[in-house]
Amino acid sequence: IDTKLPRVGTTIFTVMSQLAMEHQAVNLGQGFPDFPVPDLLVESLDRAMRAGHNQYAPMTGIPALRSAIANKTERVYGWRPDADREVTVTSGATEAIFDAIHAVVRAGEEVIVLDPCYDCYEPAIDLAGARAVHVPLDPRTFAPDWNLVRAAITPRTRMLMINSPHNPSGAMLSQADMAEVANILRDTEIVLLSDEVYEHIVFDGARHESVLRYPELRERAFVISSFGKTYHCTGWKIGYCIAPPALSAEFRKVHQYNTFCSFAPAQHAFAEMIERDPAHYDTLGAFYEAKRDHFAAQLRETRLVPLPVPGGYFQLVDYSAVSDLDDLAFCRWLTTEHGVAAIPLSPFYETPPPGQRLARLCFAKNQATLDAAIDRLRKL
Amino acid sequence: IDTKLPRVGTTIFTVMSQLAMEHQAVNLGQGFPDFPVPDLLVESLDRAMRAGHNQYAPMTGIPALRSAIANKTERVYGWRPDADREVTVTSGATEAIFDAIHAVVRAGEEVIVLDPCYDCYEPAIDLAGARAVHVPLDPRTFAPDWNLVRAAITPRTRMLMINSPHNPSGAMLSQADMAEVANILRDTEIVLLSDEVYEHIVFDGARHESVLRYPELRERAFVISSFGKTYHCTGWKIGYCIAPPALSAEFRKVHQYNTFCSFAPAQHAFAEMIERDPAHYDTLGAFYEAKRDHFAAQLRETRLVPLPVPGGYFQLVDYSAVSDLDDLAFCRWLTTEHGVAAIPLSPFYETPPPGQRLARLCFAKNQATLDAAIDRLRKL
Ligand SMILES: CSCCC(=O)C(=O)O
Ligand SMILES: CSCCC(=O)C(=O)O
Repeated sequence: IDTKLPRVGTTIFTVMSQLAMEHQAVNLGQGFPDFPVPDLLVESLDRAMRAGHNQYAPMTGIPALRSAIANKTERVYGWRPDADREVTVTSGATEAIFDAIHAVVRAGEEVIVLDPCYDCYEPAIDLAGARAVHVPLDPRTFAPDWNLVRAAITPRTRMLMINSPHNPSGAMLSQADMAEVANILRDTEIVLLSDEVYEHIVFDGARHESVLRYPELRERAFVISSFGKTYHCTGWKIGYCIAPPALSAEFRKVHQYNTFCSFAPAQHAFAEMIERDPAHYDTLGAFYEAKRDHFAAQLRETRLVPLPVPGGYFQLVDYSAVSDLDDLAFCRWLTTEHGVAAIPLSPFYETPPPGQRLARLCFAKNQATLDAAIDRLRKL
Repeated sequence: IDTKLPRVGTTIFTVMSQLAMEHQAVNLGQGFPDFPVPDLLVESLDRAMRAGHNQYAPMTGIPALRSAIANKTERVYGWRPDADREVTVTSGATEAIFDAIHAVVRAGEEVIVLDPCYDCYEPAIDLAGARAVHVPLDPRTFAPDWNLVRAAITPRTRMLMINSPHNPSGAMLSQADMAEVANILRDTEIVLLSDEVYEHIVFDGARHESVLRYPELRERAFVISSFGKTYHCTGWKIGYCIAPPALSAEFRKVHQYNTFCSFAPAQHAFAEMIERDPAHYDTLGAFYEAKRDHFAAQLRETRLVPLPVPGGYFQLVDYSAVSDLDDLAFCRWLTTEHGVAAIPLSPFYETPPPGQRLARLCFAKNQATLDAAIDRLRKL
């Protein structure tokens, strides 16, 4: 078969998780927590199932969940989307990203992505018959150079994708960045896609600059988030998209015929969880900040050099003092020889920066897991 | 916004479910059961959640579920797919259909569909930049005329989609039909997509002619099914695709970047359910046959004329003795004036047969629900 996606192999997350299993490595690769989901969520899902909420949910998501999302958005970002016309529940953020791209990007058009970026962006763009135009972030700070973005725009540019807190680096866009984005997009037809799945995992008192805070941005944007990272249940696969009515209408056309609706009992559970325990997401930053700090302090006692982590699940480390291997080879070696699975950054790039010696470690783990990893990393 | 999908509106299933709610109609429209899911499934999902199976499942589905699907396939159809390379779990059959189309169909190509067909086929084909070529089934028996299919093939034909038991009619393809399909596809590059979500709901001792029974067919096919109809949980959204390794590899490239994986606890539950209670799907035909028979007998006492139902969830009725309205108008009228929601057939067609006066009623309902509907239909 002549493949439509010649560059797609098995995602690096699967590759490293499998390698971790084969070698009984501590898996700090694929981003998922190893601690339990909140009890309230489990109990609520259980009640929803037993109450018979097991048939098709409405295509856009159950009303209670859409209104909980609208309430939360207002509470956190000071603006309330219309739950009926602007909020759509999806089978994870990945589906939402796929749908948003397919909703508006046409064959022959271009989508600007900032490298390194999450590996699901480009295949979705390719399947839409469009082309990803890669603009590099700073290879050390992962800050965007907006002049490079400006220079990448052509008459074919249909979408700009941003992601804050950023995977893999944890870098966050600032208020000044958001002003730059607004300047760049003003008077164009370019749609913004903002991937904000780590929205509640931000550190050091920083504020997450959600696109939803900015009228000029949100009126042209798909803002995508999910519950997997916020509620420690990456395997539940419920996400959502907030977009103005006209964009939501196009989004829903794709969603309707892609997955139609998502696991109904979990929708009831998230609706209840969001309303009954807002403290959960309010305190999530502090919860993860403690993990980040402890982990980074211990890493400083190894030969890996931790980079600053403004938000998210991941600690980048510079391994150049340990090894001269490229990052893919280093991560394999770390997994097979030292029993700690990490994720290389090169799969997040079209063109990895030459000589970049960084690996990504997930610290969304129990202290015991992180300690076990550190024990092994001390031997490097 | 200049829409990519000008012909897509809200699906008829949502439209009629909403109308049913507004008018407190008995909802025999959208196909979903109103009785509980098996206890074993609920208990097993609950156990999986509490055991901590809440993080990303493997992209292809958990191994226990893939092997349960392989076991079941062998048991029912006498052939065992390779659970690792040929079975992929998806977020419902709808995602699987979308992925299969996007995996192999390219811009400018053609996909043959047999009208009436399920309304998610064509938008997925459109989004792939391809064109649906509609071949009509017989407007009364819903049998295919394979000569029409043959005549519809062009050098651009990339896929043929079939569906048995058929939605909306319940018609089933015969062994002779499968031989025709094999003849038509032999020596072509055309891929077969077989939508078999009603595979276990077949009546009168008939055998479901799964593509999986036929080596010559299955080696060029995506065979798609789901658990929603089999286990009375249309809102759980777990489906799967069985295809030879080369097709599965392409399928997985799309799935990996569309939804990546599906609600993990339910995967554990279905794996256990399939293995521990094979009698469930073995007796499903008899369970629904009793409903069909009772419902049809009662319908014969109304002015609606029930058509034969070889399989599936749905009873077609001829309403020409009652009304001269077109089917969309009739179904609205039936819902708003008589309190029974039904689905018209015209949304399943590119060109509805002139003068067809048929409506679809879902009999996957408790006896009390069906009785309430009959009480109202008697007044027609
Ligand atoms: C879908 S597996 C990848 C999970 C994740 O978000 C990451 O590790 O970056
Ligand atoms: C996705 S809603 C439609 C459900 C169904 O299968 C039908 O009613 O035909």
